[in-house]
Amino acid sequence: MDRKILYVIGIGPGSPEVMTGEAAAALRESDLIVGYPLYLSLLGPEYDEKEKLSTGMTAEVERCQMALSEADKGRTVSLICSGDPGVYGMAGLVLSLKEGYPGVKVSIIPGVTAATAGAALLGAPLMHDFAVISLSDRLTPWEKIEKSLRAAAEADLVIVIYNPESKGRAGYLKRACDILLDILPPERAAGTAERIGREGEKAWTGTLAELSERQADMFTTVYIGNSTTLIRDGRMITDRGYGS
Amino acid sequence: MDRKILYVIGIGPGSPEVMTGEAAAALRESDLIVGYPLYLSLLGPEYDEKEKLSTGMTAEVERCQMALSEADKGRTVSLICSGDPGVYGMAGLVLSLKEGYPGVKVSIIPGVTAATAGAALLGAPLMHDFAVISLSDRLTPWEKIEKSLRAAAEADLVIVIYNPESKGRAGYLKRACDILLDILPPERAAGTAERIGREGEKAWTGTLAELSERQADMFTTVYIGNSTTLIRDGRMITDRGYGS
Repeated sequence: MDRKILYVIGIGPGSPEVMTGEAAAALRESDLIVGYPLYLSLLGPEYDEKEKLSTGMTAEVERCQMALSEADKGRTVSLICSGDPGVYGMAGLVLSLKEGYPGVKVSIIPGVTAATAGAALLGAPLMHDFAVISLSDRLTPWEKIEKSLRAAAEADLVIVIYNPESKGRAGYLKRACDILLDILPPERAAGTAERIGREGEKAWTGTLAELSERQADMFTTVYIGNSTTLIRDGRMITDRGYGS
Repeated sequence: MDRKILYVIGIGPGSPEVMTGEAAAALRESDLIVGYPLYLSLLGPEYDEKEKLSTGMTAEVERCQMALSEADKGRTVSLICSGDPGVYGMAGLVLSLKEGYPGVKVSIIPGVTAATAGAALLGAPLMHDFAVISLSDRLTPWEKIEKSLRAAAEADLVIVIYNPESKGRAGYLKRACDILLDILPPERAAGTAERIGREGEKAWTGTLAELSERQADMFTTVYIGNSTTLIRDGRMITDRGYGS
């Protein structure tokens, strides 16, 4: 029996109820759970007795190596990511590093990503075509990020922004909004979802001009509507084309 | 106590294990489950005893009205969508029609959308910025779809295509690929995920040129990589920027 299994798991945006049954089953089956400390703490008491290993936020390569190497010892290991492991998560890195561990079977288990969890909190902003863009320039040149923002706005796509700001990247959301305001009207509908499913969960809706004056952090997901998006009773709704 | 509750639920791509705990709890609590017959059949035996109501695939307005009107009678109702209810689902329409039912509380419950479930099946194509585009021109002019495809390709976004073809829209995937081939090289990595989590689940990876010769249906999700995406051991992996 092949016991060298590494599950790369999306635990969803925060609260344990938004995890899938498949993710919960993989965690229960695991000998070891590897992850960033905050995400380990979000798992809830059910997994308190499990052995856990963690690394710092930016130590992604070490974290993936650690998980692969522990699985290679014959253990069943789960590497957890917030949201979905395939959206700015660890799935790609694990698959790239897997070459060094030919005996390990990697299984990617999807989760609810912040784009759709935040959309549910705000209303229904993603009813039409959309682009998901990260403002983090730690691994991507800012020029490329700017090009993506412009292209999405010019094509009238709804825009979802991940990682809008962090301590080291203050003012990035304003920078992005200023680029979008070159193309889009200031009254364009916008919204933010903060700490989705966690303590301090908060939804805000308003205009793109107002958004450009707001602050955000790594736990905020930002939405800019397309030309049909409206704010109604505080909810952000993009028309699917039913003409409603 | 307010009993007039309408849950708009994403059941995930297919298999009941990919449903979240929150979605399962809402279904258990419901007096009535409303949905398209195929999605009702995907729920699994746990909900066999629940009262169910269904309408045809294109009868979205009727389905939402029916769900709102049943909730307005004081019942707890679940309206189910495949994937996530906020991604080309019923969430927007329900919120738009809600005005006629001021006493009904609508709660949107997110699910795992096909973009991320299919990505997990294929590897990790969505590790960088991406656009989600539907090829259905039932509610959107084709010119707008074409503009979105071109903008995404020009900005080097990974592209996820929903609803690539249907019986009435044969050849649409080829049409989309031909547009992309104006901008992208024929060897660009591509993949498809069919019937994710259901009987007949199938993953395919290859090139954009090969993709343009393939057929798809409403149960296929299509991926076109960005300039860093590779196919390795049959898996589609987009570089997050770790240089791996």
